Amino acid sequence: MKQIERIKEAGGWLERYQHESETCHCTMTFSVFLPPRAHKENVPAVYWLSGLTCNDDNFRTKAGAQRYAAELDIALIIPDTSPRGEKVPDAAERYDLGHGAGFYVNATRQPWSKHYRMYDYVTRELPALVERWLPITPGLKSISGHSMGGHGALIAALREPGAYRSVSAFAPICHPVDCGWGQGCFGSYLGDDQQTWKAYDASCLIEGGAAEIPLLIDQGTTDEFLQDQLHPEQLENICSERNFPLTLRRQEGYDHSYHFIASFIGEHLAYHAAALRA
Amino acid sequence: MKQIERIKEAGGWLERYQHESETCHCTMTFSVFLPPRAHKENVPAVYWLSGLTCNDDNFRTKAGAQRYAAELDIALIIPDTSPRGEKVPDAAERYDLGHGAGFYVNATRQPWSKHYRMYDYVTRELPALVERWLPITPGLKSISGHSMGGHGALIAALREPGAYRSVSAFAPICHPVDCGWGQGCFGSYLGDDQQTWKAYDASCLIEGGAAEIPLLIDQGTTDEFLQDQLHPEQLENICSERNFPLTLRRQEGYDHSYHFIASFIGEHLAYHAAALRA
Repeated sequence: MKQIERIKEAGGWLERYQHESETCHCTMTFSVFLPPRAHKENVPAVYWLSGLTCNDDNFRTKAGAQRYAAELDIALIIPDTSPRGEKVPDAAERYDLGHGAGFYVNATRQPWSKHYRMYDYVTRELPALVERWLPITPGLKSISGHSMGGHGALIAALREPGAYRSVSAFAPICHPVDCGWGQGCFGSYLGDDQQTWKAYDASCLIEGGAAEIPLLIDQGTTDEFLQDQLHPEQLENICSERNFPLTLRRQEGYDHSYHFIASFIGEHLAYHAAALRA
Repeated sequence: MKQIERIKEAGGWLERYQHESETCHCTMTFSVFLPPRAHKENVPAVYWLSGLTCNDDNFRTKAGAQRYAAELDIALIIPDTSPRGEKVPDAAERYDLGHGAGFYVNATRQPWSKHYRMYDYVTRELPALVERWLPITPGLKSISGHSMGGHGALIAALREPGAYRSVSAFAPICHPVDCGWGQGCFGSYLGDDQQTWKAYDASCLIEGGAAEIPLLIDQGTTDEFLQDQLHPEQLENICSERNFPLTLRRQEGYDHSYHFIASFIGEHLAYHAAALRA
C-alpha cells in the first residue's frame, strides 16, 4: 500500500493510496480522511461508495464531509467505483458500464469476471487493508453512498449481517433489477439469469428475508433520475410489507447532485457516529 | 439577467446567471447562493473572488461554504475570474493570462483593454446588478477570495473605502508587482510603466496610505506557491511599518487547495457576518 497524496484538511489528513488488489487483479486507488483524533488512537470508519462516473475524488472534493468527520472523530474510507487500468475491460462509449460503473457486484461473466469484483473489494479486501495499516478500529464500521453507491451501501449492509453498525444512502438505486442502469450492468456482469441479480438488489434482499438493519435514505423530490432509475417507492412497499425498518426522507426540491449530498451529509455522519459509539 | 441554473442546497438556492456586461463587453456568468432567509427579506452579501483557472463553479462546488451562508443568513456572490467568449482575447497556451486570469484589474493595453475590466465589474457593475434584481441589501457587502482572488479582495477593499464592511483572503497574492504571476499579467494588461501597477497591489496601496480596514488572511505553511508568488511577509512588513491592522494566520501544514479553504471558510464567513450585522 503506497501513499500517493496527503493533504491537510479540517485539522486532519486527507490521504490517497494505491495498492495491488488481490480481489480486482489490478492497481486500485482509494482515499481516506483521518480526523485529528486518529493521531492518538484508532477511530471507527464510515465507508462511502460513490455513484456512476465517479472515482475516489468526487466525494472528498464536493461533499464537505471532512469537517464533520473531524468533529465526530470518524475516518472516511472512499474507494473507487470500479477496477481501472489499461488491462481492465471497459465500455468506453458508455458511462454506465465498465470503468466508473462497477455496480458493487462480483461479476461472473466474461470479459468482466476477472477484475470487476467490487463487492468483495469494498466489503472484504479494503476493510482488511485499512484496518491493518491505518489507525482504524478493526470491525467498527458503517457504510453510506450515493446513487449506484447508495445501492452498494444498502446491499453490503443487507448481505453482511453484523458487519456494519449502520447504513444510509443518498438517492440510491433501490431496485436495480427493475431499472435501466441495473439491468444494463447486471446483464453484462452477471449474465441473463435474472435470479442471480437478486443477490445484489436491496429490495429483493429484503423480500428474501435479509436480517434487519435500519435503513436511512434521503431522496430529493426533483432528482432527475428519480422516475426512471431509483424507485424508492418499490423499496418502501417491500419494507412496509415485511415490516423492515426504513426511514425514507423525501427532501423537497433537491436534485441528484453533490449539492444535495452536501446539504445532508452532516446528518448522515452524525447518525453513523452515534451508531459507531453506541 | 437570465437565470440558467437553480439548485437547492442547505435549504437555500444556488443560482447561476448570465448577463450582457456593459463593463466587459461580453456575456458574463456568475453564481449566487441565496440562504433561506432571502425568501423573506433582503440579506447582506459576501463576494467571493476565485483564483487562476477558476470560473464561478469551483468555489460553490468545493469550498463547503453554502451551509455556513445558510446558517449565517448571508448571500454569496461568485463572479467568474475573467471575461470569456470567442471574441474575448486569450492566451490559450497560458493558464496565468487571458481567460481565467483577469487579475481583477482594468486593462489599459491592447488587445485586453476592451474586455478585461474585472476591477470595475466586480466592484461596480455586479453589485449594482444583484442589488437591483436579487434579495440583496443594497450597499451591505463584504469580500473575500483565494490566491489571485485574495489579491482581488484586498485591493477592492483598500481602493474603495467604506464599500466593504470587511475583507478576508486565503493565500492571497500579497505583492503582485514582485512575483511572476503579477508581473506577467500587469505587464500585459497595464503596460511597462510599473507605477501604474501599484494601484492594483495590496502592499503598495497600504504603503501609499490606503484608508484603514482590518485585513484577515489565512496562509497555509506548506502552500506550494508561498515562496515564489504569494509573499505575505512583504505585506506583513509594510503593515507593520504603517501600523495597518493585519491578522495573518499561518496555518501549519495546509496547502493551496480548496481543502485548505474548506477548513477555514466557516470562520471567514462568520467574521464577515459579524461585520455585516454590526
